[in-house]
Amino acid sequence: MASEASSPAADLKLQFAPFISALEAGFWHQLTQKKLNDYRLDESPKSIKGYYSNGDPVGLPTRLTLEYSAFDIDGPTPARCCPAFGTLYNTNTIDAFKDTDKKALLEKEAKEIWEAIQSGAAIKNPSILCRFILLTFADLKKYNFYYWFCFPALCFPEGLKLNQRPALLEQIFSAKQVTVGVYDPCTLSQHPGWPLRNLLVLLANQWGSKVDTVQILCFRDRTLQGDRSVNHSIVFQVKLPELPNSSVCPKSVGWEKNAKGAMGPRIVNLSECMDPKRLAESSVDLNLKLMKWRLVPSLDLDKVINTKCLLLGAGTLGCNVARTLMGWGVRHITFVDNAKISYSNPVRQPLYEFEDCFGGGKSKAIAAVDRLTKIFPGVNAEGYNMSIPMPGHPVNFSQATLSQAQRDVEQLEKLIAEHDVVFLLMDTRESRWLPTVLAASKQKLVVNAALGFDTFVVMRHGLKKTAISQSVPSGSAPIVPGSSLFSNIPGHKLGCYFCNDVVAPGDSTRDRTLDQQCTVSRPGLAMIAGALAVELMVSILQHSEGGYAIASSSDDRMNEPPTSLGLVPHQIRGFLSRFDNVLPASLAFDKCTACSPTVLEHYEKEGFNFLSKVFNSSHSFLEDLTGLTLLHQETQAAEVNYNLCMETKNL
Amino acid sequence: MASEASSPAADLKLQFAPFISALEAGFWHQLTQKKLNDYRLDESPKSIKGYYSNGDPVGLPTRLTLEYSAFDIDGPTPARCCPAFGTLYNTNTIDAFKDTDKKALLEKEAKEIWEAIQSGAAIKNPSILCRFILLTFADLKKYNFYYWFCFPALCFPEGLKLNQRPALLEQIFSAKQVTVGVYDPCTLSQHPGWPLRNLLVLLANQWGSKVDTVQILCFRDRTLQGDRSVNHSIVFQVKLPELPNSSVCPKSVGWEKNAKGAMGPRIVNLSECMDPKRLAESSVDLNLKLMKWRLVPSLDLDKVINTKCLLLGAGTLGCNVARTLMGWGVRHITFVDNAKISYSNPVRQPLYEFEDCFGGGKSKAIAAVDRLTKIFPGVNAEGYNMSIPMPGHPVNFSQATLSQAQRDVEQLEKLIAEHDVVFLLMDTRESRWLPTVLAASKQKLVVNAALGFDTFVVMRHGLKKTAISQSVPSGSAPIVPGSSLFSNIPGHKLGCYFCNDVVAPGDSTRDRTLDQQCTVSRPGLAMIAGALAVELMVSILQHSEGGYAIASSSDDRMNEPPTSLGLVPHQIRGFLSRFDNVLPASLAFDKCTACSPTVLEHYEKEGFNFLSKVFNSSHSFLEDLTGLTLLHQETQAAEVNYNLCMETKNL
Repeated sequence: MASEASSPAADLKLQFAPFISALEAGFWHQLTQKKLNDYRLDESPKSIKGYYSNGDPVGLPTRLTLEYSAFDIDGPTPARCCPAFGTLYNTNTIDAFKDTDKKALLEKEAKEIWEAIQSGAAIKNPSILCRFILLTFADLKKYNFYYWFCFPALCFPEGLKLNQRPALLEQIFSAKQVTVGVYDPCTLSQHPGWPLRNLLVLLANQWGSKVDTVQILCFRDRTLQGDRSVNHSIVFQVKLPELPNSSVCPKSVGWEKNAKGAMGPRIVNLSECMDPKRLAESSVDLNLKLMKWRLVPSLDLDKVINTKCLLLGAGTLGCNVARTLMGWGVRHITFVDNAKISYSNPVRQPLYEFEDCFGGGKSKAIAAVDRLTKIFPGVNAEGYNMSIPMPGHPVNFSQATLSQAQRDVEQLEKLIAEHDVVFLLMDTRESRWLPTVLAASKQKLVVNAALGFDTFVVMRHGLKKTAISQSVPSGSAPIVPGSSLFSNIPGHKLGCYFCNDVVAPGDSTRDRTLDQQCTVSRPGLAMIAGALAVELMVSILQHSEGGYAIASSSDDRMNEPPTSLGLVPHQIRGFLSRFDNVLPASLAFDKCTACSPTVLEHYEKEGFNFLSKVFNSSHSFLEDLTGLTLLHQETQAAEVNYNLCMETKNL
Repeated sequence: MASEASSPAADLKLQFAPFISALEAGFWHQLTQKKLNDYRLDESPKSIKGYYSNGDPVGLPTRLTLEYSAFDIDGPTPARCCPAFGTLYNTNTIDAFKDTDKKALLEKEAKEIWEAIQSGAAIKNPSILCRFILLTFADLKKYNFYYWFCFPALCFPEGLKLNQRPALLEQIFSAKQVTVGVYDPCTLSQHPGWPLRNLLVLLANQWGSKVDTVQILCFRDRTLQGDRSVNHSIVFQVKLPELPNSSVCPKSVGWEKNAKGAMGPRIVNLSECMDPKRLAESSVDLNLKLMKWRLVPSLDLDKVINTKCLLLGAGTLGCNVARTLMGWGVRHITFVDNAKISYSNPVRQPLYEFEDCFGGGKSKAIAAVDRLTKIFPGVNAEGYNMSIPMPGHPVNFSQATLSQAQRDVEQLEKLIAEHDVVFLLMDTRESRWLPTVLAASKQKLVVNAALGFDTFVVMRHGLKKTAISQSVPSGSAPIVPGSSLFSNIPGHKLGCYFCNDVVAPGDSTRDRTLDQQCTVSRPGLAMIAGALAVELMVSILQHSEGGYAIASSSDDRMNEPPTSLGLVPHQIRGFLSRFDNVLPASLAFDKCTACSPTVLEHYEKEGFNFLSKVFNSSHSFLEDLTGLTLLHQETQAAEVNYNLCMETKNL
């Protein structure tokens, strides 16, 4: 094509200046968005729109521009530009891109143009003559865009003879014969641009028998130094050849040469010029959306991504939970922890590094936020370096300690209210008590994970329907804690972490040997439990009833799963030595020291006064309150053996 | 105590300068090592040795020094120093430290001194008079050391009367009566040091009835400006009081005051002055050793820590495997990968961050090494940015590509030979072929992990006994691939990743859509599979037969486990939607395209020539070689349906 335009030997043959494709970064960005949000894996042809102007200064190549607006077919065309409609073929793979039959694509488009010429449709709508093809492959992992442009042009077998060399309009102003005007984007004084080609075929086909020679006005509407002028337009006469067989589509040309001047695709890498943060965001989106497009069409990703997660504990479990949440695209992650990073942490707590341990160690909650931001700048993470008051850990040493505890409770209440899911990821049993009470009262979904040496429990707490009205009449209440005989337990009747216990939480940190202070567990355990905690949350979110969903049990493994992602168990209890998980489900215990109606009522009526009594008291306060003390006496009298219940606890 | 020495009012009463404990960082470091390696959770009293000198210049307090040599009871004492023997009580918790009955400890020690005085043992061995107690708690997570020193001194109920103020030896040189010398660490001109106290009780007890007044020479051996001199020694007379009841141990004193001058323990934090890298190493050690001390005494940690691991693939699986290996204390980790880090990686590949994606992305293998070093500087990690040649991916385009493939094969052979365990963590099936062949030939343990959307397989490959001799006579060979009917399969008869396949690996990367190019899986899956791959390796290492151990199956979950860590399955196949794992075991397939005797023999005889044929050929080459082609024909004829076998593959 380019040689047609540049060969000086073709004196009396009309040659055309081909379009150069001008694909702006905005076009590629928009294509990325379309691919991610609309097309996905759909490879069918799409209509797009470009434009060209005919007012360029001399020296500029004839450009067909595609920018961000290309996908808005009905949108406006920039002033003094001519729209050009095209077809986008965006392939899913580089191999499909390479293997696309370019000849066939061109011929298909040429045939349509030819048919519009023959039928006369192109007379009514000449834009049909000026169509293009764009073949693309967008490698959205690397932001490499491969593309090949084509401007189909039907050919006269013998070419076109010029009766007269093109001359500038200003030199010839009196036209006598049939004159045809074309809006010409070319700036060359001896050559018209590409749009004339198919127009001439139209003329030859429609009027070739009547008209032998036609005068062409290539209209160029240029503004030079503020003065609009059409004097740079060119005029020439051309003899219209006869088309050999009007029923057969003529040969066509049109694929653009690449940067090396050879026939081949072009490639553009935009990873440098796109904002890296946006690049990261759309890349992460892509990975997630592929799950939906390809495998789980009903997956509600937005529900997951928009879930606000509060992580109580930023240790082994907290770090692994945060990483899995990031993998799921969760943007809003808040950490609460009062510990500093010590030298033993980084090899097991995957948000920390060696340097975080210097000078006594950074605050875990703060360092975790820094790390998430380094991993993915689009995350909205916050960290609170604070303590969670605990039963049996008195706060009444002084007015100052009491006020601090009150502030800590208020902060935790606020945080729980502001989040959708509360993860309990601490390393003591009693630190889970306060958030269990607060989340139950505020009806927030709680996902709880705890580690033993080679065993773990990951569970969702029962989600109360309303804090007060769910009071279970004592007659109908189950009195056997830890029972897993019940099946089909709805979410609002499920137990919490404390429901299996018949003693209230107290100070378990006193007299712990070193191995109890730091969680001594097989290193892979926290990764497994952390990952499962998040996957459990995601599965629950996919259930139409969310946290109220009936608990799946091990027996349900062979049944139709309740969500597109599978089961929504109450508990996952894992045994690494056997590489086994079981899925027990158990009812809420009406004498539970954390989620029973009595405890929630006292908290809701008395607030911090009630809580501080719990912090400052021994076991017996909560046990008396909930009726556990009475239960102990009754069961002792009846010689019921609770050892089994106790053993299944503290996995 | 201090007031005894400093009160100016006690004119005629003899007062003593107490020891100051001088515990050097070396002592604490050695205590840390002893705790980690010897004492562990043992709280029983330990003998230690300190020393004091009597040559200090005026102004220095009387110090009893404990340094790194303190635990070497029989070791030398520094020149011109006097040894002092003591008892170390190192508690496991801060609460035990606080709750230790200090009075009882002192009285126990005092009683022993008193008995040695009474029996005369102290005359033969006066060092018994100069014993000390050290009570400690070492918080090895924060490097806080709590301690309290005690130098038990028996008391005369009424104190001691001086007949004459102490005078410098140079002033009084003629002694008349009984003179007793003591090696005196004190530098005060009016007061002796602590060691004299128990000596005087000894004198009073043994000779009190015969001697009323005794002259004391506090021998001080000082070197001043190069001249040794004893002229700073002091001399005084003291009247020996009668001890009220010689059969009862006198009252004793001796606990050191703390830095505030009050009775209480001292604390020293050494995290600043210890080398952070050594701190990190001993902290990581501690966490691991606690598992052994407390929970799995038979755990062979050294076997785990010293295992050299080769990770083929540094993507989602590779990053998670590396992190779990770090948690287990594995020091030698090598990565092989040829990919660069793209923007979608950091949220799922936990060794990379946003900035690693800039400029086209860092090499994964290299960046992974950098990250491991940032997590734990003690790691010995290496990265190889290289490709692994694959069947169906021709390498014979040119001499250059062929030579490169040969170099890659040689490098991989070398790496596999140098490591103990090979992890296959790639994202294509065919890239696993070459390392499967090489590792089988070199009899290296292979742990293989592969992900689906919500399913995974983690498996160990069968470990060949010897590459040639294990040829299975075709008569006895199992011909049903994928069978799990066989139980008690020994490690050398287990299958590899390819044993279940009845087609040879080929180019699966062509025409993969984007979702196949990047692994589309639930984000928690890689963490679970990566963690399980390492835990499987550790369990295998704990088995006395290692990779030759009989494969555990799901049925073995109720039986006595074969290792201290539990089962050693052949495969763990996980189903995240059901939160379930099954443990199939299957025999090696005698027509396997990777580990069959035929393939190994060809590789061992022909080397790269054979391999390059596989790379450059289609499926049929390996299928013809192994007899799969024949099998296909036979089975087609017999209408055997292999669909089931195929389906269980590629989980």
